[in-house]
Amino acid sequence: MPTMSEQILSRVAGRPVRAGDVVTANVDLVMVHDSLAPGIIRILHQELGAERVWDPQRVAVVIDHVAPAASVQTAEKQQEVRRWVRAQGIPNLFDVGRGISHPVLVEEGLAQPGMLILGSDSHSTAYGCVGAFGTGMGSTDIALALATGKTWLRVPETIVVRASGTFGFGVGPKDLALRAARLLRADGATYAAIEWHGVEQLSVMERMTLATLSIEMGAKAGIIPPAGLDLTGPLVPTVDADAQYQEVVEIDLGQLEPQVSAPHYVDNVADLSDLGRVAVDVVYLGTCTNGHYEDMAVAAQILAGRRLAPGVRMIVVPASAQALQRAAADGTLATLLAAGATIGTPGCGACIGRHMGVLAPGEVCLFTGNRNFRGRMGSPEAQIYLASPAVAAATALTGYLTDPRAVMDGQPVVSQ
Amino acid sequence: MPTMSEQILSRVAGRPVRAGDVVTANVDLVMVHDSLAPGIIRILHQELGAERVWDPQRVAVVIDHVAPAASVQTAEKQQEVRRWVRAQGIPNLFDVGRGISHPVLVEEGLAQPGMLILGSDSHSTAYGCVGAFGTGMGSTDIALALATGKTWLRVPETIVVRASGTFGFGVGPKDLALRAARLLRADGATYAAIEWHGVEQLSVMERMTLATLSIEMGAKAGIIPPAGLDLTGPLVPTVDADAQYQEVVEIDLGQLEPQVSAPHYVDNVADLSDLGRVAVDVVYLGTCTNGHYEDMAVAAQILAGRRLAPGVRMIVVPASAQALQRAAADGTLATLLAAGATIGTPGCGACIGRHMGVLAPGEVCLFTGNRNFRGRMGSPEAQIYLASPAVAAATALTGYLTDPRAVMDGQPVVSQ
Repeated sequence: MPTMSEQILSRVAGRPVRAGDVVTANVDLVMVHDSLAPGIIRILHQELGAERVWDPQRVAVVIDHVAPAASVQTAEKQQEVRRWVRAQGIPNLFDVGRGISHPVLVEEGLAQPGMLILGSDSHSTAYGCVGAFGTGMGSTDIALALATGKTWLRVPETIVVRASGTFGFGVGPKDLALRAARLLRADGATYAAIEWHGVEQLSVMERMTLATLSIEMGAKAGIIPPAGLDLTGPLVPTVDADAQYQEVVEIDLGQLEPQVSAPHYVDNVADLSDLGRVAVDVVYLGTCTNGHYEDMAVAAQILAGRRLAPGVRMIVVPASAQALQRAAADGTLATLLAAGATIGTPGCGACIGRHMGVLAPGEVCLFTGNRNFRGRMGSPEAQIYLASPAVAAATALTGYLTDPRAVMDGQPVVSQ
Repeated sequence: MPTMSEQILSRVAGRPVRAGDVVTANVDLVMVHDSLAPGIIRILHQELGAERVWDPQRVAVVIDHVAPAASVQTAEKQQEVRRWVRAQGIPNLFDVGRGISHPVLVEEGLAQPGMLILGSDSHSTAYGCVGAFGTGMGSTDIALALATGKTWLRVPETIVVRASGTFGFGVGPKDLALRAARLLRADGATYAAIEWHGVEQLSVMERMTLATLSIEMGAKAGIIPPAGLDLTGPLVPTVDADAQYQEVVEIDLGQLEPQVSAPHYVDNVADLSDLGRVAVDVVYLGTCTNGHYEDMAVAAQILAGRRLAPGVRMIVVPASAQALQRAAADGTLATLLAAGATIGTPGCGACIGRHMGVLAPGEVCLFTGNRNFRGRMGSPEAQIYLASPAVAAATALTGYLTDPRAVMDGQPVVSQ
């Protein structure tokens, strides 16, 4: 019986396919974002000679990477993208402040179970949160898909991360994902698909945490079975009892400690308790990995009625306008602000170090995002630690890397 | 009897002074902001040879101009400023997200009636909103004041802008200020102090709109009598019936139409109704002039239950964290977000064109700020129109310059 990748890729290839097959597939949706769009547009028209995208309805364009524009150059690029979208008759442009492509396409119902979705952003594995096969591609491949509606792929082998048990207080999906990266390492799932089993209790955006971090283990896709999400799509992939897997990694959520990825590699992961005292200048809560409503709510639970440690800045950049609206409506945002956190425009924020909190040399950042590569958020002399929103909030209260369970005096912190 | 400037400058000079006198004065408060602080620090220590600021309690440092940092260079500057503040024992550092210096120093109670306040930012006339003599100075003068606690000034003549009547629907303090700029022109109050009379009904932040725009007529200071504000200070200046004024400009608020400053000079002001159809790409609500809670509330009244025109971006950058917290608490922010506006980190935002919404060539921006100089917000080929928050909101709904009274079907819009 087929893996979820095999189920999806069989559909888009129009024939039954298996891991190892090289297939030409029909693409359901292509996502293009601001910082690479101008180059993709040039390839599409000049190198490939295509005048029009193959199907404007199946293209989504998102201005999220440096939004709002932080320089005349980025403003010009975004202007070019808007004009192109109009000229092509593409209905789905999500402009400054709407949020990061990945949660936005999910919120808008464009990303659906069983789809093959290509994105110009490397974290396009995110769409696995709805049971889609999402993958990032380079500009030339994206341009080819825009021109033809097709792409080619080798059907990946599948690695299963099988969770059992339930998260304890202060531990959540980010800890699971970092634990998987610790076990598999950065190259442990190279060109494989990761299927995340045993996480039906998670919301769709919590699942996105797992799906986005799949690429950090080298995965072509990271897919969570959409069972339990009230979603429809061209195909609802399911877990088959006798599917063939390359590897199965077992993780007991009940035993999981808060995990932290130390500089400068995502798989440089340790239990928080093993890292000793790490003083932090900036706490950054955001990104497609952990800038969702749920992430702000977890942080707000911990920060409620308290104040950031003196000298610590905390920047919250919601992953989407919907997440921000929800946080504004139910008091989550008010709680974060009252604690001394500040807010940034929904979007990618400082994740790629181009605005909204670029790091100076020597600065230490506790980041809820997905990459801590040297120089990722600014100076190559800065230090980035990846952790969960719960760890981020606890750390903001003390000024050093802190276990959320330690600041809550035994009260429940995270009920994920 | 003395003008308000004469009252304040007599106090800080330690003797009765009159317009035209050149005085040495004790400074009550010096404000330094991120983008000029490193230069000021260098002058203070290297050129003036001072090791310490004269009184750390009387210095306020605000990181607001490019906050959060938009480049490694700005991050490094801010890091240098934080280290200097610690080394000098300055207690009042307001870091990323706290907001723009001017509202922050008012909210914190540091700017008080009767004070002489120097700021490194040109809109330091803002402190006139509490009845202080606030003025911007160059880096060398600021460094001298930091070293000695003293400055020298020529006591300015005074021009009175005397308002009568009350604002009609959709008309407010920004229209009054732009009307004054239209009458006095950009050089009409050069080195004068402007006293704004007849505006006791305004809140302190609404008064800041008038005080900040005073510099755009060339004024050394712009002072509103603090009567009616529950504030104390070293002196509460009052309007003397027989003070000597250089000029008195009368403006009937009841007759005031929405005013718009067209590119590329602040005093290029016309009635909105005379400008014809001006299509707009971006509506930008923010700055020390009109990014206050009151300004967001006015915009929310107009945007409530409606949606931005297709293709229009609206960016709201609160002037301070307090303004944002108030807007988050009472639903103002939720209303703005529901209409399709987005939010930026409290601070100066794109006012100086260095991040958070830089304009591309050819883009047209309706801006609630204080300057529409060519290139101010990015490309020199962009067009900036200055207007009130009410005009901003109405324009966001239609996509072209719009009278707020026209979109409200006769309902009350602004009750200032």
